[in-house]
Amino acid sequence: MSGVEIAISLIGIGTGNPDHVTRAAVTAMNAADLILLPRKGAGKSDLVDLRRTICTALLTGPAKVVEFDLPERDADAPYRAAVDAWHDDIAAVWAAQIAEHLPGGGRVAFLVWGDPSLYDSSLRIADRLRAGGRSIGVSVVPGITSLQALTAAHAIPLNTLAAPVTITTGRRLRAEGWPAGVETLAVMLDGACAFETIAPEGITIWWGAYLGMAQEALVAGPLATVGADIVARRAGLRARHGWIMDVYLLRRTGG
Amino acid sequence: MSGVEIAISLIGIGTGNPDHVTRAAVTAMNAADLILLPRKGAGKSDLVDLRRTICTALLTGPAKVVEFDLPERDADAPYRAAVDAWHDDIAAVWAAQIAEHLPGGGRVAFLVWGDPSLYDSSLRIADRLRAGGRSIGVSVVPGITSLQALTAAHAIPLNTLAAPVTITTGRRLRAEGWPAGVETLAVMLDGACAFETIAPEGITIWWGAYLGMAQEALVAGPLATVGADIVARRAGLRARHGWIMDVYLLRRTGG
Ligand SMILES: C[S@@+](CC[C@H](N)C(=O)[O-])C[C@H]1O[C@@H](n2cnc3c(N)ncnc32)[C@H](O)[C@@H]1O
Ligand SMILES: C[S@@+](CC[C@H](N)C(=O)[O-])C[C@H]1O[C@@H](n2cnc3c(N)ncnc32)[C@H](O)[C@@H]1O
Repeated sequence: MSGVEIAISLIGIGTGNPDHVTRAAVTAMNAADLILLPRKGAGKSDLVDLRRTICTALLTGPAKVVEFDLPERDADAPYRAAVDAWHDDIAAVWAAQIAEHLPGGGRVAFLVWGDPSLYDSSLRIADRLRAGGRSIGVSVVPGITSLQALTAAHAIPLNTLAAPVTITTGRRLRAEGWPAGVETLAVMLDGACAFETIAPEGITIWWGAYLGMAQEALVAGPLATVGADIVARRAGLRARHGWIMDVYLLRRTGG
Repeated sequence: MSGVEIAISLIGIGTGNPDHVTRAAVTAMNAADLILLPRKGAGKSDLVDLRRTICTALLTGPAKVVEFDLPERDADAPYRAAVDAWHDDIAAVWAAQIAEHLPGGGRVAFLVWGDPSLYDSSLRIADRLRAGGRSIGVSVVPGITSLQALTAAHAIPLNTLAAPVTITTGRRLRAEGWPAGVETLAVMLDGACAFETIAPEGITIWWGAYLGMAQEALVAGPLATVGADIVARRAGLRARHGWIMDVYLLRRTGG
């Protein structure tokens, strides 16, 4: 790709509800020459379908839409090293796709789940392409995050009055427990109900799965009361649909 | 308003760029019978103008758009008590406006800056109206926050790889210093450059003011190097425009 100019646009598309897409996202999609849609591993084909649906519904421009297979992450290597190697692999695949479909340069767009700033690797992968000394510009179009879809669905504020909020992962909550001094904790990327590992007394949970999608499921209440329901509900939904994505907010109340 | 049914819709509209409005927000605006636009104190008329512009650009439905004056907060009372009393006052004004303009009930919408979940009191005020035993439903349409406008403008991720993020206020940062164990800190509602009160070594700042608006200003770099620039730039912009809203992300690097 040396000598050609590439503009990469990372477009946040929200978490499944095409109506959460912004006007800027629609404009950016339609300004692209090429839209690359990653195909993930088995089971998550609903998510590729959703991106396809969004393209069909919103594309009026000449963009060529190309699907490509994402490399798999090495599940056996240590987490950090595995993720770094995986991002290298993805960057190589992006570069190959761009070279093939935009040999003379141009504008390539990726539709990023939620917002590109939040627990998403597209910006890091784009940096790897830039590091090769190529002439690559990167721009970002913000999108509604799953956390905002959660608070909107429950009609609750993220923070209590003028108070801080911590956003973390299920992995961290499980490994490190409730962070000291924190009142409100939003948990993402939790494959296994890490909320079960903390003392539930005095904590309220607002949980949501498949937010913005037809399968949307919501549960809220004292963690001590509804925690077990969520675990059961989650297992049932996951079995039924073959995959699940969920996010939750925990708040210490009257502590 | 007793006996009548009211549906309150809190619609996130992003932070000034009408293109950050979602399709769902446009739909909700157009489904409303009444849109109430608060007029804030002197100096912030740009913000009322922006909401008016968004209404003019996006309204195709029959909604009646009514402006009303927000009560002032008692600047002398202790913060918490003053805010509680202020929210009571605003709830009373909302109730009066709704009773006057929707005597038979109906759908009233408020255009909320950014996302209604983040450092915004509309949900708390709506709860006060509900507490009166009235038949009031509340729904929320998410919007792009100023924090997302910041990370998108700088094309940076909010979190580092799989790591937590804390969102806080300038008041807290000033009063409590850098929170223990935190790597990434997003600071909002900072009237006076609280980043000046922390030791700048090893911290990078990404700062943005008037995000999404014509006046947008961005600065990024090591806090030790660019901190003073931001203070000067902010003072100049504030003097020029009569008001300012800014937000920033701080990250400890290589620590
Ligand atoms: C790799 S992160 C991407 C987050 C995304 N960038 C965002 O802004 O929401 C994936 C995590 O986001 C959350 N998530 C994404 N979409 C979701 C949805 N529709 N419903 C519930 N949680 C979702 C889950 O916690 C999931 O593990
Ligand atoms: C009362 S809070 C409302 C936040 C809003 N609900 C959101 O989602 O961004 C106001 C604070 O948001 C930030 N803010 C809002 N709009 C902004 C803008 N256009 N540019 C920079 N900061 C902004 C500033 O930190 C400001 O003090």
